[in-house]
Amino acid sequence: MKETSQKEFAEKDTRVAIVGATGVVGREMIEILEERQFPLSSLSLFASENSAGQVIEYQGKELVVQAINENSFHDIDIALFSAGGKISEQYAPIAKKNGVIVIDNSSHFRMDKDVPLIVPEVNSSHLREVLSTIKGNEGLIIANPNCSTIQLVVILKPLNKVAKLKRVVVSTYQSVSGAGKQGMDELWEQTMAIYNQAEVVIEKFSKQIAFNAIPHCDIFLENGYSKEEMKLILESRKILNLPDLKVTATAVRVPVFSCHSESVNIEFHEAISADKARTVLRESPGIVVLDQPEENEYPTAIELAGTDSTYVGRIREDLSVENGLDLWIVADNLRKGAALNAVQIAEIVLSTRQPH
Amino acid sequence: MKETSQKEFAEKDTRVAIVGATGVVGREMIEILEERQFPLSSLSLFASENSAGQVIEYQGKELVVQAINENSFHDIDIALFSAGGKISEQYAPIAKKNGVIVIDNSSHFRMDKDVPLIVPEVNSSHLREVLSTIKGNEGLIIANPNCSTIQLVVILKPLNKVAKLKRVVVSTYQSVSGAGKQGMDELWEQTMAIYNQAEVVIEKFSKQIAFNAIPHCDIFLENGYSKEEMKLILESRKILNLPDLKVTATAVRVPVFSCHSESVNIEFHEAISADKARTVLRESPGIVVLDQPEENEYPTAIELAGTDSTYVGRIREDLSVENGLDLWIVADNLRKGAALNAVQIAEIVLSTRQPH
Repeated sequence: MKETSQKEFAEKDTRVAIVGATGVVGREMIEILEERQFPLSSLSLFASENSAGQVIEYQGKELVVQAINENSFHDIDIALFSAGGKISEQYAPIAKKNGVIVIDNSSHFRMDKDVPLIVPEVNSSHLREVLSTIKGNEGLIIANPNCSTIQLVVILKPLNKVAKLKRVVVSTYQSVSGAGKQGMDELWEQTMAIYNQAEVVIEKFSKQIAFNAIPHCDIFLENGYSKEEMKLILESRKILNLPDLKVTATAVRVPVFSCHSESVNIEFHEAISADKARTVLRESPGIVVLDQPEENEYPTAIELAGTDSTYVGRIREDLSVENGLDLWIVADNLRKGAALNAVQIAEIVLSTRQPH
Repeated sequence: MKETSQKEFAEKDTRVAIVGATGVVGREMIEILEERQFPLSSLSLFASENSAGQVIEYQGKELVVQAINENSFHDIDIALFSAGGKISEQYAPIAKKNGVIVIDNSSHFRMDKDVPLIVPEVNSSHLREVLSTIKGNEGLIIANPNCSTIQLVVILKPLNKVAKLKRVVVSTYQSVSGAGKQGMDELWEQTMAIYNQAEVVIEKFSKQIAFNAIPHCDIFLENGYSKEEMKLILESRKILNLPDLKVTATAVRVPVFSCHSESVNIEFHEAISADKARTVLRESPGIVVLDQPEENEYPTAIELAGTDSTYVGRIREDLSVENGLDLWIVADNLRKGAALNAVQIAEIVLSTRQPH
């Protein structure tokens, strides 16, 4: 059993693990840890049996991916999970029992009332509160929200400070990387097949994704919404701590490799002009306002893939309702929508646990 | 001067002209006239000086495209215009003066209060009324609505019969063929360039359209909306004859060749269940309901390109508002969104003018 006390934890650099290291989000996590010079003393890479043995480079060193098992978490302080809900369900509690701070990118624990669901720009104070209540050798599971939710709440939070949110209608334009490497390969292979007049093979998505738009992300539920749409609704409420917030969503996959875009209509309880919204958003953390449409300045996926901010543009006053705004949000779903947000959570964990 | 009286007009087949015959919509019009065995006695093809001389086949005959001029309309009964607003502005009044029934696909006359803006499934009775007031040798300009508007109002009209519309929020996923042949070529050439690791050339659209989503269709106006978005708002009100209908729209170009898709949120003044909506839509003209999402049954662009109906699916009760529905609409923007709708208008003209 690991027995890191809060004191020990603070005195040395952190032992980090990535679970799901060979997936697109896992690889992005490793890259982001390196980019941000995360102060880790060791990096352990885990994956399923199938992917074990692969070699991944970190700071010039070659690290071998190990098959995950129940004993993987003895010498780990922080574990970033991104290997699907089943792996999280099985191993996150074991890691927690070993005193590990788990930051889980799967949806498995997100709506658990005891699990903080965190977007640092939005509710880091809640995370700090929870962290302050646990002992140094206690573990914790923190959930990383759904990609399409993160970029939405980053924009909604500062707006809600100046005009209370009433209702949000979202339509997404989600990239294939949200469906992992298989999703990206499928778009590319179908595009090549069309180019070469060969047969288009459909495996990962329900229909051909090349040159198409598919209103189907994740499975469908009894109420007619997809699970992705319900994540947008329920996770937004939890993160914003607005349990009664009215949200509806339509989630659509489009033939884009990286970055989710969202067309968002917001009704407020109070008046807010487009200018006021721009000013507030410009002053808020993690946000870049790109909003001079007449100069072709508005965010698009292709231009912003690989970057870290949440971008917003096309901000305008809604002609159909009092106190309404329409806007367009873009963020890299693998970075801010997944890996970067998880690493930012890890940075908060560190800053809370280390002496200031 | 042409002097067809109503009697003459009824007794013989109709002399039809296509203005803009070499464009993607013009070509589609010719195909649809042939498919539907439109009872025409002659087909004259016109285009700009640049495209004159091209040969287009109709019913096995080769027709030579002529350069349009002021004398082009002497022996024409019905002219379908799709050569841009400027050509319509210049030549539609001349044609009308020559006694021609003009069906104009440009936006130039659409909001003119004296010009009927027609979607046959929605307001053919209005067209019949107008036609009944004009003399046999009088011309008329009839406007064909914007592509993204047509498929929207086809769905809104029958719903409004059973529950009064209150507010509509639309986000579009518009194909590149809405920007003509150049738009289609640009998507294909950019895709090939990426495949071949060559330079991506941007000419027609404001940004790279391949593997991207661009919230920019037509030019931007002072209120922050694009002209395409305002067309959706203003034309819907006019066609539905609901001048106070609340509509907001975000128009987005996606890398799809044909068919526009729309994510539509509707608030009603009265209750309407998803089941009721499905039933009403199933019984309405021009509509196919594809709505068993759990069986992957919902409309998508790739599957429906080249077809004539307006397709709707993903119909569900909105969780965020009383009396709300979310749904997903797809139609071929070159056919129902342009050429087919124009030919359907021409069919109404014929049926009104011919003895029953």
